Amino acid sequence: MKKINVGIIGLGRIGKIHFENLKRNIPNVTIAAVSDPLVKYDNGIPSCSPEELIAMKGIDAVIICSPTDTHATYIELAAKAGKHIFCEKPHDLSLNRVLETLAVVEKSGVKLMLGFNRRFDPNFLKIRNLVKSGRVGDPHVLKITSRDPGPPPITYLKSSGGMFLDMSIHDFDMARYIMGKEVVEVSATAAVLTDPVIKEAGDIDTAVVTLRFEDGSMAVIDNSRKAVYGYDQRLEVFGSKGMAKVDNNMPDNHELYDADGTHGSLPLNFFMERYTASYLYEMKMFIQALQEGATLPVSGHDGLKAMTIALAAGKSVKENRPVRISEIIQLDKVKH
Amino acid sequence: MKKINVGIIGLGRIGKIHFENLKRNIPNVTIAAVSDPLVKYDNGIPSCSPEELIAMKGIDAVIICSPTDTHATYIELAAKAGKHIFCEKPHDLSLNRVLETLAVVEKSGVKLMLGFNRRFDPNFLKIRNLVKSGRVGDPHVLKITSRDPGPPPITYLKSSGGMFLDMSIHDFDMARYIMGKEVVEVSATAAVLTDPVIKEAGDIDTAVVTLRFEDGSMAVIDNSRKAVYGYDQRLEVFGSKGMAKVDNNMPDNHELYDADGTHGSLPLNFFMERYTASYLYEMKMFIQALQEGATLPVSGHDGLKAMTIALAAGKSVKENRPVRISEIIQLDKVKH
Amino acid sequence: MKKINVGIIGLGRIGKIHFENLKRNIPNVTIAAVSDPLVKYDNGIPSCSPEELIAMKGIDAVIICSPTDTHATYIELAAKAGKHIFCEKPHDLSLNRVLETLAVVEKSGVKLMLGFNRRFDPNFLKIRNLVKSGRVGDPHVLKITSRDPGPPPITYLKSSGGMFLDMSIHDFDMARYIMGKEVVEVSATAAVLTDPVIKEAGDIDTAVVTLRFEDGSMAVIDNSRKAVYGYDQRLEVFGSKGMAKVDNNMPDNHELYDADGTHGSLPLNFFMERYTASYLYEMKMFIQALQEGATLPVSGHDGLKAMTIALAAGKSVKENRPVRISEIIQLDKVKH
Amino acid sequence: MKKINVGIIGLGRIGKIHFENLKRNIPNVTIAAVSDPLVKYDNGIPSCSPEELIAMKGIDAVIICSPTDTHATYIELAAKAGKHIFCEKPHDLSLNRVLETLAVVEKSGVKLMLGFNRRFDPNFLKIRNLVKSGRVGDPHVLKITSRDPGPPPITYLKSSGGMFLDMSIHDFDMARYIMGKEVVEVSATAAVLTDPVIKEAGDIDTAVVTLRFEDGSMAVIDNSRKAVYGYDQRLEVFGSKGMAKVDNNMPDNHELYDADGTHGSLPLNFFMERYTASYLYEMKMFIQALQEGATLPVSGHDGLKAMTIALAAGKSVKENRPVRISEIIQLDKVKH
Repeated sequence: MKKINVGIIGLGRIGKIHFENLKRNIPNVTIAAVSDPLVKYDNGIPSCSPEELIAMKGIDAVIICSPTDTHATYIELAAKAGKHIFCEKPHDLSLNRVLETLAVVEKSGVKLMLGFNRRFDPNFLKIRNLVKSGRVGDPHVLKITSRDPGPPPITYLKSSGGMFLDMSIHDFDMARYIMGKEVVEVSATAAVLTDPVIKEAGDIDTAVVTLRFEDGSMAVIDNSRKAVYGYDQRLEVFGSKGMAKVDNNMPDNHELYDADGTHGSLPLNFFMERYTASYLYEMKMFIQALQEGATLPVSGHDGLKAMTIALAAGKSVKENRPVRISEIIQLDKVKH
Repeated sequence: MKKINVGIIGLGRIGKIHFENLKRNIPNVTIAAVSDPLVKYDNGIPSCSPEELIAMKGIDAVIICSPTDTHATYIELAAKAGKHIFCEKPHDLSLNRVLETLAVVEKSGVKLMLGFNRRFDPNFLKIRNLVKSGRVGDPHVLKITSRDPGPPPITYLKSSGGMFLDMSIHDFDMARYIMGKEVVEVSATAAVLTDPVIKEAGDIDTAVVTLRFEDGSMAVIDNSRKAVYGYDQRLEVFGSKGMAKVDNNMPDNHELYDADGTHGSLPLNFFMERYTASYLYEMKMFIQALQEGATLPVSGHDGLKAMTIALAAGKSVKENRPVRISEIIQLDKVKH
Repeated sequence: MKKINVGIIGLGRIGKIHFENLKRNIPNVTIAAVSDPLVKYDNGIPSCSPEELIAMKGIDAVIICSPTDTHATYIELAAKAGKHIFCEKPHDLSLNRVLETLAVVEKSGVKLMLGFNRRFDPNFLKIRNLVKSGRVGDPHVLKITSRDPGPPPITYLKSSGGMFLDMSIHDFDMARYIMGKEVVEVSATAAVLTDPVIKEAGDIDTAVVTLRFEDGSMAVIDNSRKAVYGYDQRLEVFGSKGMAKVDNNMPDNHELYDADGTHGSLPLNFFMERYTASYLYEMKMFIQALQEGATLPVSGHDGLKAMTIALAAGKSVKENRPVRISEIIQLDKVKH
Repeated sequence: MKKINVGIIGLGRIGKIHFENLKRNIPNVTIAAVSDPLVKYDNGIPSCSPEELIAMKGIDAVIICSPTDTHATYIELAAKAGKHIFCEKPHDLSLNRVLETLAVVEKSGVKLMLGFNRRFDPNFLKIRNLVKSGRVGDPHVLKITSRDPGPPPITYLKSSGGMFLDMSIHDFDMARYIMGKEVVEVSATAAVLTDPVIKEAGDIDTAVVTLRFEDGSMAVIDNSRKAVYGYDQRLEVFGSKGMAKVDNNMPDNHELYDADGTHGSLPLNFFMERYTASYLYEMKMFIQALQEGATLPVSGHDGLKAMTIALAAGKSVKENRPVRISEIIQLDKVKH
């Protein structure tokens, strides 16, 4: 099997997950360099600036986990340097920048994968496979519940692009992934119900978003920035032949019966615990596709499409009306 | 305890349920007369025309289970005859007729209860009580899944007023009941996905409806006329202090593990089986309130409000935009 | 359909259940007389002594719900009077008396059904049907958990015959019913763990009983007189092709997620709530079998066999060794 | 933190699990040498004979994963060489050899841990903690279901010491661990129900074992060598204040509803998948205790005690009677 050399830019929470997985749990891959202004590694892995890392000889792929506003720059640099790219979501907060970098990537011939890790979660994979295999028939209605245990710091919120681009974008990608169809229209209802500070920051914390697909089928996503009981990540697809759903993952499955009732554990608290398996499998798939010269399982255009849904959702809230994707972008004019 | 004498108009599926419950399982009540053009009872209970029944001396209350297009007439006759009224939903398909009959009822001083039986289901009651007791905090998002095992005959569909007035109206009432707040705006997305005959009839079979409440909180309802696995009736409420949900009721709770997987029973097939307990409890509450001279647990105005949500949902689908309840009716101008 | 006239002897908790079911919910049956020294009915049903009731002309069947020490006498009287018999468990606390009365019944030609109501519970019926249909293959191990919410009064305990004859006997019958095989040996381990008063009364409150069937397969029953969380009635059968199990029934199926964990309702508290459906279906089957001249679904010999298992369990505890059923009775010498 | 150097003897299925965990997932530990006649590692880790490995300078601890009949010899060699020991279960099939090696270990002053990995499973740990914290009150009855997906090869079976020593020994250890009390008597009922070849080999494949603890409380274990639906590992403890239970772990938690019923995944198939987390945590605890100079979480005497229960169970089956632990060994005469 071909050995792959990777460089990692950014060693925050997500960067460290990818670092550990690449180092310990994925065969035939070497971390050739890392780049982070704050984190120092003393285990023999060269540390350098992002630009040096991207330019480094012998590196096959760059894993971009730095702050969002640097993604587009590093993607373009890497593409021009002929390095394959794994980039955390979101690609960029500006639709134009995304389109520009996609054009650069396309021209360069390198491969780009967006970090929609949830596609690789065993539960959601199972649902995807049930849909693909026809076990639920034609999918009519997809339901996604996606609630965070608590909002990020307000400083983060202000530069996040808003809840739809920062948080719901995972769910928008999931909707396309599970349904295997394209969204044509978005209707969103939103509010600030947990903390007025979020309103002051111009953001929302609670939303119900309905997606209409090209064939009339629907998806409905409910989001909240604050579920006091933890991270709530569930999904259900209803179709002509049946319904399939997955529930949260728990740290254990105990049930306690006492005089007051029955009791159990709370769901795994946040993405680091809940999506452990998906982060590993995602990176394995990225490396394996590079080794085999195969198509990457999530493309830059997948990122683009999730982004257009997020933008349509924002516009729908602002204008209080359904917004068609074609109002955001003429997708047929984008090569992919 | 005061004895109550009732007359039942209409002995179709629902009428028979009420008949059996009143005869067998509710104390201190006598069925003094029944009226149905097709059903003959030979057990000593007088049978007569609806008009005769309503006029009959000694009858305290009339239970109206006849076809929808007769409801308004019988309500008015009963009100004028000074008889209390239990009427199956929907009250009437015309908003004006509903308003007229409500005015007649109000003037007459009799009590009117609409048959939103699901309020009396042990599962939904439990959720209602959890919300009322503050256990979930301020409710932010309510989710209702409501799917029928199959559509009614097309002839029925054509005179049903459409899915929102015929089927979803239960869910609209449930949303108000659980949240304890009023709806101000409705956004509906709908399609025909199960059978083109439904489209020809001018109706829909699948919908996602988002309700916005006065304080910004939301409810989302997903409906389908055809779930191949049976009757799907679930509910979840998410709030500032927690989340509570109820699942379908099953005929048994067996789990079978074999070499192919784990297997269990399907939900109770339709409303007759699923809502057995709620029909009984609903009628008990009606009779008991009459005996005690207490307020009825569901009023005519509850029926009116659920209806306005249904009308707003229909308008929302037609015009593909959020519709405010105030576009349908000025509720503050309706006495209640 | 043939009309059946029944008389009920004993209107305690169980007697009242049967009275209400026969009066309200079972067609083609008339309660012709009742007999209870304490309970007076003023609804037109004749009340008399047990002897008068048994002798009464026109009565087809006698329902015996009086205290255990009267069962054998009334069974014999009824048999001699040519009346079919439904008798609550246990038949009698003396094996000899049981054998005597079975002989009288057999000679008389009347039908006798023992009140093992749990056979008619929807959950256990489902398991029985899965076993019969071969879905679990050859059953290897049956597991029954059977715990009461609290012990009966100590005065009751003292005349109950002990936990095995009073409480576990239901489980012994269930074991034979589910497995469809005969028990040949019993090993019981028991203790008093909840209240020393039970020890003083010469009884036990906690036990694990292993039954060995004729073909080497096994059942294990765990009993407790006191489960603080309510009535615990579960069953699992494991076989060559799979495993099937049923859980407790709940008053509702809500789940509450809050900052402390997940929470749900306790099981239905005791037999009156849990076995509502089974009491009704049991009595329906009794009446229906009489109407059709069919074999009764539970025989006097089923009662006898459950009793021998209970006696063997008691002997096993006393002598701390496995006890064969053949040490209790030579079943092949009993006609059935 | 002190660095620990370990050597691993035996790189079969279990040895490889420990190897990978020590190499990848446990900090501050180095695999200094491995020894396996069949497996060759080319990653720079020295390979040698078990005796050489045990004698090797700089090694702090030896991980023994070789065939059972070599355990005692290597334990003694390691103890004499002053190396701490982690040994897979069972210690040895001969009680005398176990006692001899425990004496050698004790004299040497090294630490010995037996590989009862299930104690480190998140589910069972949760139950242990609930019991210790008093949430279930005084534990009265423990129930363990432990079924393998299929029997090992017959050649393995013949040298395994029989099902109780090979398989149930985990459950016997678990019983002591959860209850926190000592077993005084064992009653076992067993049979061959899956394959006559097992009978020819002098073994059993199905058993129900009841343990009596010093205070009268009980545990009941049901074992099978063949569950067609996979690896079945469940546990329930019932006490004076409540009941707590854990269920199997699943590869995903999907539920599929279709016209035939509801369906889900089978449990994780066997110990490699089911106990992944427990193997890691077990080894982490071993290494950490060595680093901190703390007591090991499972001792050699824990192994001895589980073994005596297994021997008592075997004797109970053979002689068809309850067997006291004191018939197997005078535990108070064994130093620990």
